[in-house]
Amino acid sequence: MRNIKLVIEYDGTNYDGWQTQKSKNTIQDTIEEALKKVMNEEIKLIGASRTDSGVHALGQVANFKTNSIIPIERIPKAVNSILPPDIVIKNAQEVQEGFHARFSSKGKKYKYTVLNDVTPSALNRNFAYFYPYKIDIDAIKAASSYFIGTHDFSAFKSSGGVSKTNIRTIYELKIILNDNYINFYISGDGFLYNMVRIIIGTLLEVGRGKINPDEIKEIILSGDRKRAGKTVPAHGLCLLEVYY
Amino acid sequence: MRNIKLVIEYDGTNYDGWQTQKSKNTIQDTIEEALKKVMNEEIKLIGASRTDSGVHALGQVANFKTNSIIPIERIPKAVNSILPPDIVIKNAQEVQEGFHARFSSKGKKYKYTVLNDVTPSALNRNFAYFYPYKIDIDAIKAASSYFIGTHDFSAFKSSGGVSKTNIRTIYELKIILNDNYINFYISGDGFLYNMVRIIIGTLLEVGRGKINPDEIKEIILSGDRKRAGKTVPAHGLCLLEVYY
Repeated sequence: MRNIKLVIEYDGTNYDGWQTQKSKNTIQDTIEEALKKVMNEEIKLIGASRTDSGVHALGQVANFKTNSIIPIERIPKAVNSILPPDIVIKNAQEVQEGFHARFSSKGKKYKYTVLNDVTPSALNRNFAYFYPYKIDIDAIKAASSYFIGTHDFSAFKSSGGVSKTNIRTIYELKIILNDNYINFYISGDGFLYNMVRIIIGTLLEVGRGKINPDEIKEIILSGDRKRAGKTVPAHGLCLLEVYY
Repeated sequence: MRNIKLVIEYDGTNYDGWQTQKSKNTIQDTIEEALKKVMNEEIKLIGASRTDSGVHALGQVANFKTNSIIPIERIPKAVNSILPPDIVIKNAQEVQEGFHARFSSKGKKYKYTVLNDVTPSALNRNFAYFYPYKIDIDAIKAASSYFIGTHDFSAFKSSGGVSKTNIRTIYELKIILNDNYINFYISGDGFLYNMVRIIIGTLLEVGRGKINPDEIKEIILSGDRKRAGKTVPAHGLCLLEVYY
């Protein structure tokens, strides 16, 4: 059987997240349905990241096995012609039998966008978290450095996730300002359930002076979810890339 | 009576354009309805630009007269709390009695976004025109210079517009590349009906080699709509600013 790797962009606004659910209104269900028509057989898609409802992706990765002999270069166009316009296959590639989008992944890169302004945005309402409070960006930058490296991130995990260990390595946490938008780029070998959104929520509370930048170190060590900040909304989050 | 000037951002995707229509599903109707609730009286809104269905705005300007004594600084929040999230009042300002959003305008600035890639975008599907053809960006840049200045733009006007003269001055036409996106920024003292979209359509045909950059001069002089390029779709267009 052939093993096909897809790179997928989607606007998560109108979906119940990535993973198959009874509602069938998920990204995975929608793509499997389109793949079934193109491949003429039932397709089981394995996604690298089970993004939550409202989370977007520029570079989600998924793979599936198929007996179809369709030429690889024809797959994106054929599947995109069936998919709704808020889901797009950007690339399809033939990979070795053992490739598994989730288990073979070596890391991921996310972007979280905050709009720090007095009025919300109409154009970016589904892509940026509107945060109208006065914030100290230097404090946020100082605090962000404490997340880099290998730590037990139990304090930055929502209940409900299943992972053997809460130890993860963050490679980079970069903050780029663009007018009133604050873009957080974060990459690591893996992320616990809601980890990115809790880290950003904690950094925003640092920005408002509710948490001291130096406290981040202690919060990480405490492993206490209650000491970290709120989980920011899903719609500011975008999966940029999956590393292999 | 007070005269209030508003700066408005909107996502035009789900509306039948700016101007009041029987459908009532226009930006103007929607804002007038919200203003009526806040001002406790019927409001007639005058917009600077009657943007077409699907066109967006970051800086549309409109004004209205009112007897309401609501403090000016409370208007944006009060109106935004009633408006749907795809329309946002960014600013409200008290202006002199004679100010008229359309007639007082000294010029406008638009942005047109093209996605030049092999696959469409899910996230920007409503904000960028997907143009998958190979294009010569240097030819487009060379051609764009011919539009600058004062010309009779009859060749770049759709029928249906009402204007006394077809002479307009273009101040600037700037092209900025961002990955696979081509952003055209165009400002001028005014624009004929569909003029921006026909100019961009013509530049894209230059990019594909169908029109020579030097031909632009002749096409302008000809005043012949048939010699210019196609009108590109509305959804790539965004009204950035209105000058007074």
